[in-house]
Amino acid sequence: MSGGRITGPEIERLIQLLARLPGLGPRSARRAALHLIKKKDQLLGPLAEAMQVALDEVRVCSTCGNIDTADPCFICADPRRDPTIIVVVEDVADLWALERAAAVSARYHVLGGSLSPLDGVGPDDLNVAGLIERARDPAVTEIVLAVNATVEGQTTAHYVTDQLAGAAVKVSQLAHGVPVGGELDYLDDGTLAAAIRSRTEF
Amino acid sequence: MSGGRITGPEIERLIQLLARLPGLGPRSARRAALHLIKKKDQLLGPLAEAMQVALDEVRVCSTCGNIDTADPCFICADPRRDPTIIVVVEDVADLWALERAAAVSARYHVLGGSLSPLDGVGPDDLNVAGLIERARDPAVTEIVLAVNATVEGQTTAHYVTDQLAGAAVKVSQLAHGVPVGGELDYLDDGTLAAAIRSRTEF
Repeated sequence: MSGGRITGPEIERLIQLLARLPGLGPRSARRAALHLIKKKDQLLGPLAEAMQVALDEVRVCSTCGNIDTADPCFICADPRRDPTIIVVVEDVADLWALERAAAVSARYHVLGGSLSPLDGVGPDDLNVAGLIERARDPAVTEIVLAVNATVEGQTTAHYVTDQLAGAAVKVSQLAHGVPVGGELDYLDDGTLAAAIRSRTEF
Repeated sequence: MSGGRITGPEIERLIQLLARLPGLGPRSARRAALHLIKKKDQLLGPLAEAMQVALDEVRVCSTCGNIDTADPCFICADPRRDPTIIVVVEDVADLWALERAAAVSARYHVLGGSLSPLDGVGPDDLNVAGLIERARDPAVTEIVLAVNATVEGQTTAHYVTDQLAGAAVKVSQLAHGVPVGGELDYLDDGTLAAAIRSRTEF
């Protein structure tokens, strides 16, 4: 009855942009927009500013592909990191996961995705050339492939390994097995088979 | 191993603010932040700008409590709306729901919540005084209580009705009954009893 317009164009635009965030649909975007407008000083203002800062200052590290306000990023610039190991991940989110777990104190290389012909992602879409270049550094002795245990991740691992054939580095991959806290009854056959195959002495 | 810091303070702050949006937890806030940074031009920039616009221009309508960039809001200012009816809602989200449904072409009054002693929300926290004032306008003949069919909503409806006792207006409420598309087998006893009680001629 109001010509389909339920609110002003400014609020409508905010809702539509919020709805494009992963995890938010149209309904939750409306809730989020209302929440932001109700909490102008505590949330909307600081968030608008944080986004502007991210927009102005965040860049991709030209060495490893991580994101930071500095280039090289704080990980590449950290002299305490083991310089002999490069951990290869598909995405920055994977790098964050490994850092949260404090799993390794090395440097990373972010490929920017995984090979997926169905999604049109080919070798040229991944930052493999940069990795080959870094692997030529005599200080680097090991490349750890920390890619997802999916078909795409494993295909990518094989491709990267082939490309690294000429470099004098050891190429390793994450162990496959029973997740810590996992119950055997709930695990898939592939994981169980891998866990048996790679069993270690108790 | 990096002292708990997995990314720069600017990105960390963006993640923490995003995590305060309803519907986003810490993990989805990280995904959202990465998504925003990957789509700087298409999403992060426009969203930062839309938030700044909302911050600068969106205000609460001093007549009805709706939010808009104008005061009075576009609904209060719309001369085609029925001036005899005021639809009372708890929240702007409810106003949006009624507008989306094009359920009524009248004006609204947003209470800003519902009476809830457990949550510390009392009569003074709701915009009831403004409604009494508006109900005194001789042009207004009916107040429709479009509050939630919850205990808090119904308590609020009773309170508002008491306060309106002196005004020469008819006070009505939304019909209770079977939702359109609803199956009887899945409905609660209260809804079924209300649907029988308020049955209409076929």
